[in-house]
Amino acid sequence: MFEFNVVSESKVSPARAGIIQTSHGAIETPVFMPVGTHGSVKSVTPEELKDAGAQIILGNTYHLYLRPGCDVIGRFAGLHQFIHWDGPILTDSGGFQVFSLAKLAKISEEGVTFQSHLDGSSHLLTPANVIEIQNCLGSDIIMCLDDCIQYPASKEDSLNALEITTNWAKRCKQAWQEINNGHNALFGIVQGGMFKDLRQRSAEELMKIDFPGYAVGGLSVGEPTDVMLEIAEHSLPHLPVSKPRYIMGVGTPENLIELVALGADMFDCVLPTRNARNGQIFTQFGTVNISNAQYKEDTEPLDSDCQCYTCRNYSRAYLRHLYMARELLSYRLNTIHNIHFFINFMKKIRQAILTNEFEEFRKAYYQKLEN
Amino acid sequence: MFEFNVVSESKVSPARAGIIQTSHGAIETPVFMPVGTHGSVKSVTPEELKDAGAQIILGNTYHLYLRPGCDVIGRFAGLHQFIHWDGPILTDSGGFQVFSLAKLAKISEEGVTFQSHLDGSSHLLTPANVIEIQNCLGSDIIMCLDDCIQYPASKEDSLNALEITTNWAKRCKQAWQEINNGHNALFGIVQGGMFKDLRQRSAEELMKIDFPGYAVGGLSVGEPTDVMLEIAEHSLPHLPVSKPRYIMGVGTPENLIELVALGADMFDCVLPTRNARNGQIFTQFGTVNISNAQYKEDTEPLDSDCQCYTCRNYSRAYLRHLYMARELLSYRLNTIHNIHFFINFMKKIRQAILTNEFEEFRKAYYQKLEN
Repeated sequence: MFEFNVVSESKVSPARAGIIQTSHGAIETPVFMPVGTHGSVKSVTPEELKDAGAQIILGNTYHLYLRPGCDVIGRFAGLHQFIHWDGPILTDSGGFQVFSLAKLAKISEEGVTFQSHLDGSSHLLTPANVIEIQNCLGSDIIMCLDDCIQYPASKEDSLNALEITTNWAKRCKQAWQEINNGHNALFGIVQGGMFKDLRQRSAEELMKIDFPGYAVGGLSVGEPTDVMLEIAEHSLPHLPVSKPRYIMGVGTPENLIELVALGADMFDCVLPTRNARNGQIFTQFGTVNISNAQYKEDTEPLDSDCQCYTCRNYSRAYLRHLYMARELLSYRLNTIHNIHFFINFMKKIRQAILTNEFEEFRKAYYQKLEN
Repeated sequence: MFEFNVVSESKVSPARAGIIQTSHGAIETPVFMPVGTHGSVKSVTPEELKDAGAQIILGNTYHLYLRPGCDVIGRFAGLHQFIHWDGPILTDSGGFQVFSLAKLAKISEEGVTFQSHLDGSSHLLTPANVIEIQNCLGSDIIMCLDDCIQYPASKEDSLNALEITTNWAKRCKQAWQEINNGHNALFGIVQGGMFKDLRQRSAEELMKIDFPGYAVGGLSVGEPTDVMLEIAEHSLPHLPVSKPRYIMGVGTPENLIELVALGADMFDCVLPTRNARNGQIFTQFGTVNISNAQYKEDTEPLDSDCQCYTCRNYSRAYLRHLYMARELLSYRLNTIHNIHFFINFMKKIRQAILTNEFEEFRKAYYQKLEN
């Protein structure tokens, strides 16, 4: 089961609010998806994620395939039961990690061979087996295998990766149709490097194959923010308005609000969770580092308007103390706050779209940052 | 406010069940107190501690005095508000850490000087200022400064430490009476190394000073278990039956049940929390290491009889996976289980004392371990 409906559109920009229906529940878009790399959003429980308003989480196929592996997760009929999360799950195809994390990644006609970063063992990911693996994981939204090139990349390399990505997308679609279990939706991934014409071509080729949803990949890989936004701006309009549009691996609150303004619906990023563990806290007034000496005796919460568990119960002074003492609770309390911030931020954006006040919201957001 | 009442005594051993009343609530004894070294029981929240049945937690004066310091905690009118725990708190005097963790600890007439293990700064702990510091922390039960000698120690060194401990105990009592805020109870600490006559002498000297409660210190410092139990057996009977008796820093479930049989009421130990972070899980059938390959595909909970959050929601296979991937959630889920195990174990012991079935419970416990 998979359905997407736009429920409201901004009158002055491509921003829109929608609802995705999956076998594991509904997702209101635009949505931010916390990242649970190894089947756990680092330091927090599913109950805490729900408390923070999370509607869908992301898992990394590359990591879960290598450890604990499909044998183990298959015993639990998929990730949901294994990790104790009953909401929707999206998994990537593993391609991004193969190219960024594994050793000796090598593309062939068949797929991509690589050596595990854990033990050096050799593996092969093909369009067909990434669909198979993600089916075993029981994900609600699964992704095509794509060829993720490094930044910067020449036009030739970008074109080459685009062509491989289209070829793999076709084979992924075929493998997905053959299994056809009706439990998940397959998304195609737009590539094309930092070249607008290649991005357009990639989007058009994927649309011909026809997917239930589309992602824009290969962004936030080291390029300047304005380039990222420009490429997104030239990718999104070439994707069908009736399908969800997902920008992979992005980004800061400012990135998110700009990408929503360009018509994007879905986002994932390790930023709120990873930075929480480094003591960086997101607030409506910008980011702060909790290790800062100014918080030493500060009895106030991180953000007095915030309703998260951390802000309801703990002071900046205690959070600073936990961070300075490298207490495990520090990572967790910071993570709860940051996830709540990102999710609540997207909720406010959605509400503003619904009431046709998105542009006002966007302006007000930047004004607060400047104060 | 502080009151202790014995509510039931075993007919065949000195084991007893009691209730301690404090300003922050009641404590049913025998009780296990989880250790929150830096003002946080590592990885878990106060809500999770209460869920696991914790009635009182312990904080380390040495650590909290050095960081964040009394200036900071004083701003919150004490630890309770600072760390978001509204139940009773016991703090040690800092003596144990000064001798085991700090550098250049040096005893003088006045007290003990040392250098911080954090930054090398010089500090002085005296009988009077450890009372002052613990008052600032707002602890419900505070401890006298004692001279903790290393194991093994000669009789001469043990006697010397005993005499210093008695002298400091007198001065602690005096400082406590001068402040006399009525909010906390001061416990004396029996020392005397591994010498029965010195232990008896220490207990008798402390009783003359007269404290609301008594602890046996200097155990579980490297001596064999039978020596520890023998020394406890020769210390406890010399302490008044009308006062709570606390064995510091002990121990395994087997230690706890034996010490309860000898008449001890209170225990603290890092064992359940530290070992949780090393993957060691306590169950009614003994300890297991979650990294063991046999759990790789095990869909069962850690202990099918256990009602803790971890056992209600997660399998051994998932817990093994989290541990192997060094996920932060691993430390937390293991900690929740181990704390629940220790506290539930003490609850069962207490219930057995109340129904006069303690000896049967003790036998049944060992039988299960042998299976």
